[in-house]
Amino acid sequence: MAQERTIALDAMIASLLEEKKYNTLKDVFSTMAAADIAALFEDLPESSLPLLFRLLPKELAADTFVEMEPEQQELLITGFSDAELRDMVDELYVDDAADIVEEMPANVVSRILQQADPEKRRMINEILHYPEDSAGSIMTTEYVSLLPQRTVEEAIRRIRRVGVDKETINTCFVVDEKRKLLGTLTIRALILAEDGTQLETLMTPNAVAVTTTEDQETVAGQLAKYDLTSIPVVDGEDRLVGIVTIDDAVDVLVEEATEDIEKMAAITPSDRPYLKTSVWEVWKQRIPWLLLLMISATFTGMIITSFEDALSKLVILTAYIPMLMDTGGNSGSQASVSIIRSLSLGEVELSDIFRVIWKEFRVSILCGLSLALVGFLKLLLLDGMLWTTEYNGVAVALVVSGTLLMTVIAAKLIGCTLPLLAKKIGLDPAVCASPFITTMVDALSLLIYFGVATAVLHI
Amino acid sequence: MAQERTIALDAMIASLLEEKKYNTLKDVFSTMAAADIAALFEDLPESSLPLLFRLLPKELAADTFVEMEPEQQELLITGFSDAELRDMVDELYVDDAADIVEEMPANVVSRILQQADPEKRRMINEILHYPEDSAGSIMTTEYVSLLPQRTVEEAIRRIRRVGVDKETINTCFVVDEKRKLLGTLTIRALILAEDGTQLETLMTPNAVAVTTTEDQETVAGQLAKYDLTSIPVVDGEDRLVGIVTIDDAVDVLVEEATEDIEKMAAITPSDRPYLKTSVWEVWKQRIPWLLLLMISATFTGMIITSFEDALSKLVILTAYIPMLMDTGGNSGSQASVSIIRSLSLGEVELSDIFRVIWKEFRVSILCGLSLALVGFLKLLLLDGMLWTTEYNGVAVALVVSGTLLMTVIAAKLIGCTLPLLAKKIGLDPAVCASPFITTMVDALSLLIYFGVATAVLHI
Repeated sequence: MAQERTIALDAMIASLLEEKKYNTLKDVFSTMAAADIAALFEDLPESSLPLLFRLLPKELAADTFVEMEPEQQELLITGFSDAELRDMVDELYVDDAADIVEEMPANVVSRILQQADPEKRRMINEILHYPEDSAGSIMTTEYVSLLPQRTVEEAIRRIRRVGVDKETINTCFVVDEKRKLLGTLTIRALILAEDGTQLETLMTPNAVAVTTTEDQETVAGQLAKYDLTSIPVVDGEDRLVGIVTIDDAVDVLVEEATEDIEKMAAITPSDRPYLKTSVWEVWKQRIPWLLLLMISATFTGMIITSFEDALSKLVILTAYIPMLMDTGGNSGSQASVSIIRSLSLGEVELSDIFRVIWKEFRVSILCGLSLALVGFLKLLLLDGMLWTTEYNGVAVALVVSGTLLMTVIAAKLIGCTLPLLAKKIGLDPAVCASPFITTMVDALSLLIYFGVATAVLHI
Repeated sequence: MAQERTIALDAMIASLLEEKKYNTLKDVFSTMAAADIAALFEDLPESSLPLLFRLLPKELAADTFVEMEPEQQELLITGFSDAELRDMVDELYVDDAADIVEEMPANVVSRILQQADPEKRRMINEILHYPEDSAGSIMTTEYVSLLPQRTVEEAIRRIRRVGVDKETINTCFVVDEKRKLLGTLTIRALILAEDGTQLETLMTPNAVAVTTTEDQETVAGQLAKYDLTSIPVVDGEDRLVGIVTIDDAVDVLVEEATEDIEKMAAITPSDRPYLKTSVWEVWKQRIPWLLLLMISATFTGMIITSFEDALSKLVILTAYIPMLMDTGGNSGSQASVSIIRSLSLGEVELSDIFRVIWKEFRVSILCGLSLALVGFLKLLLLDGMLWTTEYNGVAVALVVSGTLLMTVIAAKLIGCTLPLLAKKIGLDPAVCASPFITTMVDALSLLIYFGVATAVLHI
């Protein structure tokens, strides 16, 4: 339904534009949310963009600009006069301005920074100088700070004076003269308190804070854990240098979950939406892993060829290779994915490794026994009827179900320890999920299979 | 580091408790955040819980209670006197109270509802009556509503009077006498406006709203998309019935990402953290899929046995089965996972199906050709040296690389269409990710492999 509405809107805007009904367009846009206008602009011809964009009121224009794709932002900036660009940069929050600057080519960046007033230029440069994905790089420096000796009345007066330029006033920050963070104060507490109350007695001391170099995922996790709408960012001396607001934290949480999912599926993460990524880029995200995994399958090939005599004597054994490998792979990735997600959410720590192994060991015994039992019955009762092959009955069924049990145990133990070991040595746990584990478990399950077959069937 | 600190804190609390230093404990707790106290309580012996809990000041006690596990909540409630329970329920926000009621056994529920005042009882029951995972079930009915004719000064006076019982005052909601939603008004706009301004001229009309039956994931997505800290929930007649706040939306986003990840790895989702889920429950989450996938592998077995003559003549063909199946499986799950995540994030719609297929087709040609080329060279140059088998040179290399190309194309097309088809018929796209696609792709890649082998090698 949302889709249909957008299509109808496209057509409406296009015909209003053709009829040059600019005042109507202005009215229409002013009823819309910035994110929706940006989405609409993407579907309209690029040539109409500068004209349409100029119909937006100042603040809405800035909000819409922030929501647009880098290509369109660049197109617009290139068309802006210096005065227009100055107005736009003036309206942007400093963290959004820094995000945009990061995506633009050098000549556009220098134009943007030229048009920013000196204070804003300083703040943008400050944010840009923090490492990517750190708290410093996603924070804003536009927050309300208050001194602890002030009263509620004075604080509200100050907020009314400076608040319009701040990204949020929902939480204010109490600092001493050296900008050392003393506590936080919600606008709610301020509004509900008596006018004469001193902020010192009203604020939340020991507020949760993060340092500028903290990883953005941890920062977002803190906001989620403590149900905050913003979190203070401090430097090494506990001085307040910025804040991270919940809207940016939500973006980080969604982005990091997507990255984890992509890594688990052997895709190099990209921060562009699927439909906007070119075929070549998608290929580049996917082919390295496919090649690596194809080449690492050389091991499974070597194992099979070294047992080729046994296999040519009893081809029925070949028929169970896919099933054993897939069951092993699935068992392993169940364990690894559970652990990887728990690590991301902070539910499992490195120090839990022995608890994890002990739990997976018991789960793998249960799963292995269930599969072995059902597999044994399936081989005896079903496969003999379905398959057109000379069949060795109970002995082969024993080999297959024994292999199932051992493979599942091995797969789950590998699946749960690899991510923890990866984290231990500073690698990303998500990268070693299913595909890697599949390769290891494939090789292992074949070795177990042929080992058991040789022992039981004497081939 | 956080871990070490918690351990040290455990020991400190335990020894303070033993020395009966209750006032010190009180002071220590009052410096801590609710989420941290709840985590600490989990690691302490259950018997000390009621005593420790009673040391918390009223509001902090309620906040901590909300963060605790259901088992511990039940333990505490059972030990509460009616008066204590009444105080607690009084402090709880109504959406949190409804969440707790949902987790408790019937006798505890009736005690809770008995102790709630009639208005709160009505609100809890209202929330409970909405379907699970709907906007209605996660909303709160404690918000600030304002009439459009009022002035800023009147509004602030009203907020000061009623705000203390509301979950948020950061956004207020403008409604007419029939509670029809007219617009939203941030506390920021109120604070920064002139005292005499009418709310009607200040509010954001056409505010984004959701209906009570909307899926919680969509609601959370709307909050994220429009950078909101709360979103109004309306009934069929556009009357305001509640709001969803950003903290609950963040929980939904994290929870839904975890569910998607678990489904992709063939795990039935659970809402309990890994280490708190019993071995039996983990087994129950995992075994149905393993059994299903093991049994569906019967097809691959049937395909192999029907080609057993060919395989016994040229065992080298068996050696490439794992590689071909894994490459197919990985290619397919790359495509399916990209589409599933894009569907979740609203970046891809059902109507994009042909764009998606066309894109995956081109990507699969690129990936397939790269793999076929590298595979061909690897077979000719590397495998002949490494593997101990009689070897058929160029012909086998052609068969394997031709199969690679076709398998990758088939796998990517299946991988991208299955999730879209699942969504079309109302199933969960995530459930048909890697494991299902692996099974289908396994069968298909074997058919292609044996088909090509029969044609080229005349076996």
